[in-house]
Amino acid sequence: MALIDALKWRYATKKMNGQAVPQEKVDYILEAAKLAPSSSGLQPYKVFVITNQDLKEKIRAVSFDQSQVTDASHVLVWAAWDGYSIDKITTVFDKTTSERGIPSSAMDEYKARLWGMYEPLGQEWHANHAAKQAYISFGLAIAAAAEQQVDTTPMEGFIPAEVDKLLGLSELGLKSVLILPLGYRDEANDWLVNLKKVRTSQEEFITEIK
Amino acid sequence: MALIDALKWRYATKKMNGQAVPQEKVDYILEAAKLAPSSSGLQPYKVFVITNQDLKEKIRAVSFDQSQVTDASHVLVWAAWDGYSIDKITTVFDKTTSERGIPSSAMDEYKARLWGMYEPLGQEWHANHAAKQAYISFGLAIAAAAEQQVDTTPMEGFIPAEVDKLLGLSELGLKSVLILPLGYRDEANDWLVNLKKVRTSQEEFITEIK
Repeated sequence: MALIDALKWRYATKKMNGQAVPQEKVDYILEAAKLAPSSSGLQPYKVFVITNQDLKEKIRAVSFDQSQVTDASHVLVWAAWDGYSIDKITTVFDKTTSERGIPSSAMDEYKARLWGMYEPLGQEWHANHAAKQAYISFGLAIAAAAEQQVDTTPMEGFIPAEVDKLLGLSELGLKSVLILPLGYRDEANDWLVNLKKVRTSQEEFITEIK
Repeated sequence: MALIDALKWRYATKKMNGQAVPQEKVDYILEAAKLAPSSSGLQPYKVFVITNQDLKEKIRAVSFDQSQVTDASHVLVWAAWDGYSIDKITTVFDKTTSERGIPSSAMDEYKARLWGMYEPLGQEWHANHAAKQAYISFGLAIAAAAEQQVDTTPMEGFIPAEVDKLLGLSELGLKSVLILPLGYRDEANDWLVNLKKVRTSQEEFITEIK
């Protein structure tokens, strides 16, 4: 299915039917999330894949009681780094040079320049910048799910501090950023499924400078 | 081309060959960008499509002299709202209800709740939240380009205040967030094209909670 057709098919599913998404489709979606580009290739986030029903119930309770969280078979949570550090950057760059078979010193200059820019910006800026990278990965997971005819509900509507507690994220240096329930639409009971998809007009969205 | 294959094919192109991307492919990429989901459907960003060579030169000068900016046939700039307002939200929601053929009052309660939440968070939070939405759209544009075998360079590496000036964004209530040159890789002269794509390991990226 072409990406555009998949994006037209998808919508923020409001009611899911409880049917389980096959593991190979979940793996495909996670692979797309992992292949997302990120600033300097740092991939400053992880994805939690939750199938435990008790935990889904607890997350639903801090997500404005949205039923998709418990009706989805898999709930994905993007958790971004709560800050950058020279150690974290070094770990990623060392893996990169190692897999590319080049000396780790090959990225020393770039690393020094990057950290020279990041360090003074402070941890709040870092966390925010890391969170932004997660949005790209999140977008690609939504697209991959749609291509596989799997429904999703892109969610910012939850209390991050509570989800952080439920997943023990602080101890891992992470903050919850986005949630994506995966499942299948319950057409008979979803108020949004038959409403027209509305987007800004071409004229408003695009400005050409020739 | 399946999304995963497209994502494996793509990379942050470091040298483009100057060949022009056909208009129908550019349109396809922009359509994917426009179909991206966004928080409350606000789509708080626009895309500038720059083919003017003089302007590309000026943008390159404030983008650490990256050659892709002038070698790309089209340079896309995502510009996000510099803040939310009740008027902006009303405009979007009125269009939504109008296109869906439902009374505009149908979204009044949701709108009041949304603005009640957004207003106290302040303009810096707003701008940042709007920017995050742009990252999803940006991700989908990158994916759509890859599906069409069009190369891109995801770029945060530019001076936003200078790009804002070049495009007159402040007057429009916008801030530049991301740049995406579209073009074709110059295989003979791109140092990155033959290096292995490196991503975090499955074990590090994913935590399953069963």
